[in-house]
Amino acid sequence: MTLKVSDIGEKELIKYIIANSRSITPDDTAVTPLESSNLISTCDMLIQSRHFPQNMSYHDMGFKSVTVNVSDLAAMGAEPLGFLLSIAIPKDLEIDHFKQIVAGVLKACDFYNIPLIGGDTNESSEIIINGTALGLTDKPLMKDDYNKGDLIAITGEIGLAALGFELDVLDNIYVKKALKPEARIKEGLILRDYATSATDITDGLASELYTIKKDGMGFMIHEDMLNISDEYKRLSDELGLDYLDLILHVGEDFELLFTISKDNLDKLPIDCIVIGEVTDSDVVEMTLENGFVERIENRGYEHYVSE
Amino acid sequence: MTLKVSDIGEKELIKYIIANSRSITPDDTAVTPLESSNLISTCDMLIQSRHFPQNMSYHDMGFKSVTVNVSDLAAMGAEPLGFLLSIAIPKDLEIDHFKQIVAGVLKACDFYNIPLIGGDTNESSEIIINGTALGLTDKPLMKDDYNKGDLIAITGEIGLAALGFELDVLDNIYVKKALKPEARIKEGLILRDYATSATDITDGLASELYTIKKDGMGFMIHEDMLNISDEYKRLSDELGLDYLDLILHVGEDFELLFTISKDNLDKLPIDCIVIGEVTDSDVVEMTLENGFVERIENRGYEHYVSE
Repeated sequence: MTLKVSDIGEKELIKYIIANSRSITPDDTAVTPLESSNLISTCDMLIQSRHFPQNMSYHDMGFKSVTVNVSDLAAMGAEPLGFLLSIAIPKDLEIDHFKQIVAGVLKACDFYNIPLIGGDTNESSEIIINGTALGLTDKPLMKDDYNKGDLIAITGEIGLAALGFELDVLDNIYVKKALKPEARIKEGLILRDYATSATDITDGLASELYTIKKDGMGFMIHEDMLNISDEYKRLSDELGLDYLDLILHVGEDFELLFTISKDNLDKLPIDCIVIGEVTDSDVVEMTLENGFVERIENRGYEHYVSE
Repeated sequence: MTLKVSDIGEKELIKYIIANSRSITPDDTAVTPLESSNLISTCDMLIQSRHFPQNMSYHDMGFKSVTVNVSDLAAMGAEPLGFLLSIAIPKDLEIDHFKQIVAGVLKACDFYNIPLIGGDTNESSEIIINGTALGLTDKPLMKDDYNKGDLIAITGEIGLAALGFELDVLDNIYVKKALKPEARIKEGLILRDYATSATDITDGLASELYTIKKDGMGFMIHEDMLNISDEYKRLSDELGLDYLDLILHVGEDFELLFTISKDNLDKLPIDCIVIGEVTDSDVVEMTLENGFVERIENRGYEHYVSE
């Protein structure tokens, strides 16, 4: 019985690639030193059947393909430089729908101030969009330069998209976050001068905490600091879902998760939500509303895993 | 009856994107001025059912995904800087096959001296590999800076892969070119100092000639300078195929097509095949072996077009 990719999961595949390549330093993006700055480069592929909900417009597909890549630039505190678009579409796709996807891409490029500089078109059985985002920064914001005692914060509420994917109604903040997420590029540029580390939340807070965790260091998150609304708990409950599970283990938030010293937090000129602190416990845990402390499971959205 | 992408073809789609974007200068790659040089960036997506022949090994799929992108760097005379790999695979793909693809990618990165610096993995119904290649050059070799009287040359024989795709036998130069093409990165770096313009041949010589054609300028290609072997003509004939059609209109050669002054040709330190000259006829034509002159059709490999 031969081993298949579904037996080991996406993260193991990535580890395999990294282990066999001398030049990958695992962070949100690649960092390539140039003369007086650093080239920041990242790519992300979106596949219609996996990444685009049924109720997502063609315009929003295009927009999101830029967002997911610019979000990684934001996580590094990079200034956008250019975007490359590889798009594969079915040959029976209507021209108007193709144009709407492109309009979404161009709208996002304009919104994030990242020029569309190149690309490629192809034919495939479903819509597949690969974006490459390039940026520059003289001071890349890495994912694990934090210290014990640093505070942990996020640039905005999380879990909204996760709930939005479960809802059919089009006109509420949850579905809006699910279909029209935005990257925190401006916040990333500011955090570069204040935060000790940062990453963007795409596979869920839990997953990202484990991604940035260093040996010997840990995180204590406080549920009562997450600002979870009563409405959120009620809607989750009505759907038969665990609200903490939605908040921690689904993702697609595109908020930045960052660490910051108490002193710098006082000076930080952007809004954020402080959710915990860096410890030397070597575990990732949460103090629940009821006071109990639980380990946060290392579980997030992962491709391939057999269902 | 709504218009579909198959009604207008891939080239029109690309034109649409370019027409709506302020920042794309159509050449083999994007050119972004950076510090004292230029960042060269390009992306290309390979889709299993479209780009990988049945008899292609997993290793060669990985290798080719780097080749097609490095070939565009070569066409610009760029020094390789880094490669990003986005790979989507079916969840029932055997681990060993995934590892073979990655091995092919890493082998190619080593061969072309382009470090693998980042990437992404995904799940899809077939193997899809998007590569982004980054390079640097202070003197990008554009596609249409030629002058009347320049000679037209190629870095090696063309049409071999086109014939190779039609053959089942594994062990001949045609099939080898079809399954294991190589980018002319070293030649590109040298041509930067000698050629007036260059592009890489991927959709066939005819297609590339029309891609680099400027208003008022034309090209005269000479069939007897193409070095078409008797074996090539015989094999094509046995397959019921037109050998000129294979050479002009299929592609996948990855040789560089370039223009060069007579003086510089004398000094050029690499092998090449001179195949014609730049004219002011405003047409793309060929003098056949029998002496007749014919217009070369603007026909090459194109996605989406209804069959």
